[in-house]
Amino acid sequence: MNRKLPVAVLGATGVVGQRLVRRLACHPWFELTTLAASERSAGKRYADACAWRLPGEPYAGFADRPVVACDAARIDEPLVISALDATIAREVEPALARRGALVCSNASAFRMSADVPLLVPEVNADHVDLVLAQRASGSRGAIVCNPNCTTTVLVLALKPLADAFGIDAVSMTSLQALSGAGWPGVASLDATANVVPFIGGEEEKVEEEATKILGAFTSAPRPAIQMAPFVVSAQCTRVPVVDGHTEAIGVKLRGAPSQDAVVAALRAFRSPFLDLELPSMPATLVRVHDANDRPQPRLDVERDDGMSVHVGRVRRCSLLGIKFIALGHNAERGAAGGALLNAELLVRKGIVS
Amino acid sequence: MNRKLPVAVLGATGVVGQRLVRRLACHPWFELTTLAASERSAGKRYADACAWRLPGEPYAGFADRPVVACDAARIDEPLVISALDATIAREVEPALARRGALVCSNASAFRMSADVPLLVPEVNADHVDLVLAQRASGSRGAIVCNPNCTTTVLVLALKPLADAFGIDAVSMTSLQALSGAGWPGVASLDATANVVPFIGGEEEKVEEEATKILGAFTSAPRPAIQMAPFVVSAQCTRVPVVDGHTEAIGVKLRGAPSQDAVVAALRAFRSPFLDLELPSMPATLVRVHDANDRPQPRLDVERDDGMSVHVGRVRRCSLLGIKFIALGHNAERGAAGGALLNAELLVRKGIVS
Amino acid sequence: MNRKLPVAVLGATGVVGQRLVRRLACHPWFELTTLAASERSAGKRYADACAWRLPGEPYAGFADRPVVACDAARIDEPLVISALDATIAREVEPALARRGALVCSNASAFRMSADVPLLVPEVNADHVDLVLAQRASGSRGAIVCNPNCTTTVLVLALKPLADAFGIDAVSMTSLQALSGAGWPGVASLDATANVVPFIGGEEEKVEEEATKILGAFTSAPRPAIQMAPFVVSAQCTRVPVVDGHTEAIGVKLRGAPSQDAVVAALRAFRSPFLDLELPSMPATLVRVHDANDRPQPRLDVERDDGMSVHVGRVRRCSLLGIKFIALGHNAERGAAGGALLNAELLVRKGIVS
Amino acid sequence: MNRKLPVAVLGATGVVGQRLVRRLACHPWFELTTLAASERSAGKRYADACAWRLPGEPYAGFADRPVVACDAARIDEPLVISALDATIAREVEPALARRGALVCSNASAFRMSADVPLLVPEVNADHVDLVLAQRASGSRGAIVCNPNCTTTVLVLALKPLADAFGIDAVSMTSLQALSGAGWPGVASLDATANVVPFIGGEEEKVEEEATKILGAFTSAPRPAIQMAPFVVSAQCTRVPVVDGHTEAIGVKLRGAPSQDAVVAALRAFRSPFLDLELPSMPATLVRVHDANDRPQPRLDVERDDGMSVHVGRVRRCSLLGIKFIALGHNAERGAAGGALLNAELLVRKGIVS
Repeated sequence: MNRKLPVAVLGATGVVGQRLVRRLACHPWFELTTLAASERSAGKRYADACAWRLPGEPYAGFADRPVVACDAARIDEPLVISALDATIAREVEPALARRGALVCSNASAFRMSADVPLLVPEVNADHVDLVLAQRASGSRGAIVCNPNCTTTVLVLALKPLADAFGIDAVSMTSLQALSGAGWPGVASLDATANVVPFIGGEEEKVEEEATKILGAFTSAPRPAIQMAPFVVSAQCTRVPVVDGHTEAIGVKLRGAPSQDAVVAALRAFRSPFLDLELPSMPATLVRVHDANDRPQPRLDVERDDGMSVHVGRVRRCSLLGIKFIALGHNAERGAAGGALLNAELLVRKGIVS
Repeated sequence: MNRKLPVAVLGATGVVGQRLVRRLACHPWFELTTLAASERSAGKRYADACAWRLPGEPYAGFADRPVVACDAARIDEPLVISALDATIAREVEPALARRGALVCSNASAFRMSADVPLLVPEVNADHVDLVLAQRASGSRGAIVCNPNCTTTVLVLALKPLADAFGIDAVSMTSLQALSGAGWPGVASLDATANVVPFIGGEEEKVEEEATKILGAFTSAPRPAIQMAPFVVSAQCTRVPVVDGHTEAIGVKLRGAPSQDAVVAALRAFRSPFLDLELPSMPATLVRVHDANDRPQPRLDVERDDGMSVHVGRVRRCSLLGIKFIALGHNAERGAAGGALLNAELLVRKGIVS
Repeated sequence: MNRKLPVAVLGATGVVGQRLVRRLACHPWFELTTLAASERSAGKRYADACAWRLPGEPYAGFADRPVVACDAARIDEPLVISALDATIAREVEPALARRGALVCSNASAFRMSADVPLLVPEVNADHVDLVLAQRASGSRGAIVCNPNCTTTVLVLALKPLADAFGIDAVSMTSLQALSGAGWPGVASLDATANVVPFIGGEEEKVEEEATKILGAFTSAPRPAIQMAPFVVSAQCTRVPVVDGHTEAIGVKLRGAPSQDAVVAALRAFRSPFLDLELPSMPATLVRVHDANDRPQPRLDVERDDGMSVHVGRVRRCSLLGIKFIALGHNAERGAAGGALLNAELLVRKGIVS
Repeated sequence: MNRKLPVAVLGATGVVGQRLVRRLACHPWFELTTLAASERSAGKRYADACAWRLPGEPYAGFADRPVVACDAARIDEPLVISALDATIAREVEPALARRGALVCSNASAFRMSADVPLLVPEVNADHVDLVLAQRASGSRGAIVCNPNCTTTVLVLALKPLADAFGIDAVSMTSLQALSGAGWPGVASLDATANVVPFIGGEEEKVEEEATKILGAFTSAPRPAIQMAPFVVSAQCTRVPVVDGHTEAIGVKLRGAPSQDAVVAALRAFRSPFLDLELPSMPATLVRVHDANDRPQPRLDVERDDGMSVHVGRVRRCSLLGIKFIALGHNAERGAAGGALLNAELLVRKGIVS
């Protein structure tokens, strides 16, 4: 690649947007050329528009860059990464796709649309061909989505088991980090030394997105996803953790494999899409912990730039057969890094160039 | 009751012991006459032996009382409440029972013994007759236990459903408070902005204790408990909350009742043992919350002196039929208050006087 | 008092307003007759307008009461307690005073006005006569203020020393609780496992309010306050604590008294205004702790319904002579309870009836 | 340097020791050849002896290395870095020095000894010649110390002001992180949503160490330190922060410079010992923040590998002239990194080779 591909980030001032900016500041393929945000921010310097909340160098070197509005007519990059809220995404993203842009969206607006691929590249990179369905309906560009952060961690932990055994049922209770709610997000009076046992819309998202991602792509009669045939039941809670969603998962696997067989499958797992060699893919995707008190968000979530998932405490479940703990970085693997990985996939597949 | 019954507290310096002392300082039936603790504390003033960690008046008025060792030969109260660690309880409690004392134990040592009643009075006060089995084997006194704190919250939330519908299976993920580990307990470096996804022995305790408590007492051929016939699968985690265990529960009920029917059963529930009128019984045992973000430990756990349990977010579960959130005070309902309630039950039943 | 005096609360939906409502729900002299809040809340049920964030019974029994707008023309109680933001208070409170109401304001808007008494009744109840100055300028009603929460804790800890020795200089660094910023207040991402070393306007308020409160009331030639002649230097920080401002105080006292003399003065202190016998006055105003790791917000702040202040670690300071730690409940003593105490003072003095 | 210098770490299993191991795993000059700890750990694999509590790769690659006891007779490296507790350090460190080792100690045992240099290389590298005094008394090796973590942050923030203006008095209130107490350290029940206003011995250490470090080295009649002639008054508190001590500092400077002059001096500061070019020296030693709510531990403390200090909110102080906020990494700059920097200084000066 001789020169870097220009990329626009929508929602650049939010907590996911900040992580996108930081990742793009040193990306081997991409050059961040447009920082877009709400009308309120438009025209300001990035440093003035943005309550930067990441450790390290503030504004990742973009302090003086101007912020523009999320106006489809004024954003002409071929590749756009969107960290917009769903309600705004619903308007802006299709307008950009019509204009010809490939939009990698972190928003929930179009995740379950029949012709939108819901991608975690190591899990279902083949679903990307669903963009053909969008183009068949006349769009020059296309929208691809990454799933909800909680879903992302779940499907990455389930993928090795789906491949090795097949899944019949899934139960999941999440202990989700504060950064998943953005900034200002959860009020500190609610989050301090407390649990909030509700996150609006989260359980529904997890339950439906997971079966789409782990479903099968079929090209004929037309490109489509056949949902995976298992049930997912989710309970989502918020806990006083900064980054990292912990998930207590129970799973019913075909053939009722032993605990040892499950651990072996997790350790042996290599993504079938590893040969894509996307720059943001971690070398080790699923880290299996031996210590019985791991993974822990504060100790484990930043490994591999937050792009791996962690599994621990794999053991027998009297109800579903196997239970374990999973952990992943909601704001990186489950948001900024996930959206960026999708952008890399589009380039590798030649869908954008 | 003309005069108060003298009571000894074992393990009086720990966090559960402190709560027992505070409760006994103003109890209508009992007078705290002996504060016992480890050899290390023996001979000291209570204020010198004890790192008091409760809000309000330090030492609850017992600052100057001497602490004695947990020596069965020197404790002659007819009623003893034990907040000892299991390893010490295993030696001291039987010695006291042999000596004639009724021991209400918060320890795990004897909870699953076939002739020891595992009591939550509002749930299974009838199990108390299992002490007859102990006396049959020659003991003048007896040991009765309250369950693990996590179990206590679970069975109190399940009892209305067991009575109204019958239970076929239970899944539970806990988010447990720091006080459940005692003091010093969990290191602050492990607990701050973190989740520890493991609590040694906890899952096993919950899974077996729950079926004993919700089992049936049979008097013939000899006093015994028939375990409840359903499976419980538990995942237990520690979160940065001071007091109050939150539990995400899924339950398969007989007849697959609707969400509305389940809510109605929870609201309508009155303990079958309410007429015991024990002083530490809360007026409302199960509080059902309408707000979708409740119950929350910081806001709800102290109601009713920490003796009620809270249920919220009752809704359909695609896997088991019904799921909901429960919350209870681990250190009161699940420990000090629970042990004291057992002591009150023994008095009311005439087992001790 | 045969019947209770009707009282309106302005800003009843905020975190201070909620505490006022809870206190007034069981007040011996007052009956809460009007709950007022912003236009956005007006017309709603209190339970619908208010994100109740206090432990215990939600809405303190006022769930179904209608909320009215803060419209001076529609609030006709003789006594009004205001928990409004300063910008709104600046308009509403004078309008109410002109209409004849006695307004006890928790807002900062008029605290430093020359004719407004800034009251902590146990410290400077005599300043209340400054309302004469307001009436001299034609107002039928009047405004009295309680100070900023941080100031309140500081002056209560300083008062015994001012009386016993006289003060020459004060240094204070605060570690302030989250509830001082209201709800939603500080974002949890900023507050979790972090310190925010800045609270807008807080240091200036403490530095000037303290010298007004500890100043002298002079009635001639006209009612006025002569500022106390010492300098206060404040550094204010926010820490992850729910309730309770901790203050590390250094003080230069006249005559350079010994540490023992200072402790003795703190212990011996009785407010010169104790005979007012206001219902919300704590029996013990200044609690002096012996343990060197006290006071601590989580353990101490709720004592005496949050109305006492705590002092610990009194010791020699190589710079100013004496240093110590103080703690008080920012939202009770420093806000709701403080405003209510002022209302009680107005009744006791016959200024409102 | 052709080959790396072998280094032993004492107390390798503690939280400071773990950071030393991690730093030495990739050090340009040093090779970690011995991991020593208490008798209890001796003979175990490092992974078995050590409750590793750092993010990233567990045990930094040393999982299988054997741990040896801190026995002076068995440790023969010329350079030893000690993270021992003071009581053990008091015995082990002199024995090692007598044997010929240069001991860089993080312990408090010998910091104030007249012939032991108390070093922060960028501040007082010239004090290192005090080892001549030790050798004059017959020791072949020597002990050099880094100060207490709180002292380190303080003197690094004061050094530019001492050089530019001269200091007359210092007031400091600290808000200290949990990691400063080691592991298990502070109990989570004490640290959660709380402030502990006492850290044993800390205030005394800060007050005396700061004046030694900022004092002057004199070589005749014999090597000695002349204490800096100003008073330091410290109040030390513990707050629920993982890493990073925040300090609210007031300072009386000679000539009463303006706020602007102080900011300019801080920004212009270059360590007089910068030309030592030690590998662990940060490129920017004092980072001056413009944003009024910075520095914050969670956002700033990890910059520059935790080796810089942060200063913000420089402003007028009505009491001492200037006040500001400082922040530094207690466990890196104030402990592991500080001790390692001293080891590098000894090499650069040719004292060890």
